[in-house]
Amino acid sequence: MNHLIPLPASLLPTQLEFQLGPDTQILVAPATPETLRVSEFLAAALRRATDYALPIVPDPPAHARDQIFLTLHDDSTLGAEGYELNLTPDGVFLRAQTPAGLFYGIQTLLQLGAPLSAQEPKTWRAATGSIRDVPRFAWRGAMLDVARHFFSVQDIKRYIDWLAAYKLNRLHLHLSDDQGWRIEIKTWDKLATIGGSGSVGGKKSGYYTQDEYRELVAYAAERFIVIVPEIDTPGHTNAALAAYPELNCDGVARELYTGIEVGFSSLCLDKEITYQFLEDVIRELAALTPGEFIHIGGDEAHATDKTAYTQFIARVETIVEKYGKRMVGWEEIGQTKISARAIAQLWRGEYGAQAIQQGAQVILSPGKHAYLDMQYNEQSPLGLHWAGYVEAQDAYAWDPATFSADIGESNILGVEAALWSETLLTFDDITFMAFPRLTAIAEIAWSPQAARNWESYRQRVAAHGARWQALGLHFYRSPQIDWE
Amino acid sequence: MNHLIPLPASLLPTQLEFQLGPDTQILVAPATPETLRVSEFLAAALRRATDYALPIVPDPPAHARDQIFLTLHDDSTLGAEGYELNLTPDGVFLRAQTPAGLFYGIQTLLQLGAPLSAQEPKTWRAATGSIRDVPRFAWRGAMLDVARHFFSVQDIKRYIDWLAAYKLNRLHLHLSDDQGWRIEIKTWDKLATIGGSGSVGGKKSGYYTQDEYRELVAYAAERFIVIVPEIDTPGHTNAALAAYPELNCDGVARELYTGIEVGFSSLCLDKEITYQFLEDVIRELAALTPGEFIHIGGDEAHATDKTAYTQFIARVETIVEKYGKRMVGWEEIGQTKISARAIAQLWRGEYGAQAIQQGAQVILSPGKHAYLDMQYNEQSPLGLHWAGYVEAQDAYAWDPATFSADIGESNILGVEAALWSETLLTFDDITFMAFPRLTAIAEIAWSPQAARNWESYRQRVAAHGARWQALGLHFYRSPQIDWE
Repeated sequence: MNHLIPLPASLLPTQLEFQLGPDTQILVAPATPETLRVSEFLAAALRRATDYALPIVPDPPAHARDQIFLTLHDDSTLGAEGYELNLTPDGVFLRAQTPAGLFYGIQTLLQLGAPLSAQEPKTWRAATGSIRDVPRFAWRGAMLDVARHFFSVQDIKRYIDWLAAYKLNRLHLHLSDDQGWRIEIKTWDKLATIGGSGSVGGKKSGYYTQDEYRELVAYAAERFIVIVPEIDTPGHTNAALAAYPELNCDGVARELYTGIEVGFSSLCLDKEITYQFLEDVIRELAALTPGEFIHIGGDEAHATDKTAYTQFIARVETIVEKYGKRMVGWEEIGQTKISARAIAQLWRGEYGAQAIQQGAQVILSPGKHAYLDMQYNEQSPLGLHWAGYVEAQDAYAWDPATFSADIGESNILGVEAALWSETLLTFDDITFMAFPRLTAIAEIAWSPQAARNWESYRQRVAAHGARWQALGLHFYRSPQIDWE
Repeated sequence: MNHLIPLPASLLPTQLEFQLGPDTQILVAPATPETLRVSEFLAAALRRATDYALPIVPDPPAHARDQIFLTLHDDSTLGAEGYELNLTPDGVFLRAQTPAGLFYGIQTLLQLGAPLSAQEPKTWRAATGSIRDVPRFAWRGAMLDVARHFFSVQDIKRYIDWLAAYKLNRLHLHLSDDQGWRIEIKTWDKLATIGGSGSVGGKKSGYYTQDEYRELVAYAAERFIVIVPEIDTPGHTNAALAAYPELNCDGVARELYTGIEVGFSSLCLDKEITYQFLEDVIRELAALTPGEFIHIGGDEAHATDKTAYTQFIARVETIVEKYGKRMVGWEEIGQTKISARAIAQLWRGEYGAQAIQQGAQVILSPGKHAYLDMQYNEQSPLGLHWAGYVEAQDAYAWDPATFSADIGESNILGVEAALWSETLLTFDDITFMAFPRLTAIAEIAWSPQAARNWESYRQRVAAHGARWQALGLHFYRSPQIDWE
């Protein structure tokens, strides 16, 4: 009914619905610790919206009406993260090969449903239909810079909740930079105690203890998000150089740095203690990291000799591999010899071809589309603009497969939205920069290119704005979107 | 399901349908000549799309499944043109107060349905839902200039078919101008035989006999379209001045004019024969016109003395009223004394306030939005651009109620798309200029302002483009629209 001209004064397509009832149960088969945990995630969300008990029933004997069925079954076309979701007036049927697939189907179900709080008892309903869904890219990431300013465990958890809601599966934490070091390293404790005491402008310093970090890793993993820790090397290292004089070529500790210039610091690549330092840090990070990736930075090493840089990256990859992880680095590592297991993260797009020629895959984080710290426009109160102003449409309207002539779909591991924090102090600052651009990158990473277009996105995100508003999320009311 | 972010790879809302079957009947109650004729219009369209007989059953004894029910019933909220349309899997229920309301409901039903010709027998289906619909404005017009170039009875009928499909209800024919006179007047027969032999460039001349004109009036009326005849006075009269020397102040017949300049001709307002001429023409036009309106032009009388113009318009309105009609004139009549029954048609918007102060209503045909003869852009092969280039969005994205601070919703009788034909020779030329702008004006005239927006229109009109293409309609593939 949606193509009529002229538009009728009032138009109501026939709509069938599934509605929760007082006897609705959540049936799970097979019942495993993971499927039960995922079911509990759904039950908790629906209990918040309704007055119903919504018990979880493991391995139910038979089907009944008005229930929600979560089932693991073999269907190789759904892959590791896909799902099928069928909503009928008589029940909701969610099927996947993996708990992750069930989890993403639940995110979809929760977006589809609307709580009905005007009536008693509070209930919940969703339009009927069927969805079959698999992600385009395996790496659907968000990077958060906690080095320029520190953000609390609580803030990171709240951000993780939003990443999960939009089906992102990587949280890349930029844990060290010139201004601060944010992760406790037991063998080099002053990294955190001295290096962690700095920040841009001297505000919002701090660090995560290893226990806190493990808590974050577990919280993310429950939401099928892998935390990718980054220790930036050999540049962007002033905080470490301030904590330990022996890491400097001249043996003199640097001052803590509170500015925002880049490219002036470097580890001393001639000293063997530098590699001992790196091995200790990477070993401890690897022990904290169930995920397969360690990010070693490698960007903007302007104060490092080019030949020394090349040898350095090779040696660092050896250390990362020794502890069973894959090396991720910013695109500059493409200039050096890297293995086919390495991953180059493009931010300007200069060295992607060199990485690909070595068999490596790339993650796309182009500054002009995916840098969430870029100002939306000249009036934006937060952010920088060295890559230009990035409005919502700039973040949305690009295709990874045509981003560069050198980079084909199969070379692309995924897409990541990067949020640097030079100008950000609070959780509200983070979300103001992230929404509605993070959701744009999430859709680029998940949805088939042919299915998506800006007009459709701008209309859908307007409905999300109403939900953000209701949940108290601070976001940018882009004038490109007709917010509801 | 249409707000998900990220968009699923595949998404299918549950869809219910009404489908025609071999036993489907069209049931009509009460059966009157008009309701039966309207039913036949529907039956004919559906028979063309299917293999079914679709008999019309007057005043059926009882309801049955799979039928289409057309019913007149009292519901004052539907007014003279509104309708209710309910499509269920078991039947289609169309209700209105008037045959016109049924006719507009049928237009909606025909847009909703899709023929299924791939299968045997050919059938037809439409998604279920309910619509309640009344027009915003009583006057939903299209003006066609047949004076600069003549268009055949057949061409006019084809244009009427398209006007009806988009719920327009006025066809304003510009029957005379400097270049040609297009309607037979028995008492002044040389108007047609001499005045009708001219045209822009000397191509496509001619006139309608009174019998042909009556045929057009009847054809339009069957589609609930009132034909509004315009004889342009006192300027734009060179064709009449060429036919009759006595209408000129100097008693000398003018040459036929084939150019496109305006504003050089004038009836001789000092001669009593001029008023005899006008009375004869208006009397014969009124006799041919069951509708309540006679359009007397009145625009661009640059060769007429201002005081004489004022007295002239008053005298012409007296004649129009004498024959039981309401005077419509271009906005310049707002400068003169007119009755509250008169209607001023705005094209520049200068004299609207003066007309309204006298109690008259206005029709909006602003050049920069509603003049379909304006070029779409600098490359347009047809059209002029004195009012600017008018792309699809320019035609669509304006609101009559905010067009002028002096003109409120209640002052506006309606909206009319004007198509002047200086550069148009063929039916394809007409439709190239009309589509997709005529449909934009049709929506402005019919649909509530709050319901409509450009993004929605551009998506809907893309689907219509596919239908236009299939039906061989020549139209402008505006780059603003993602044509299907």
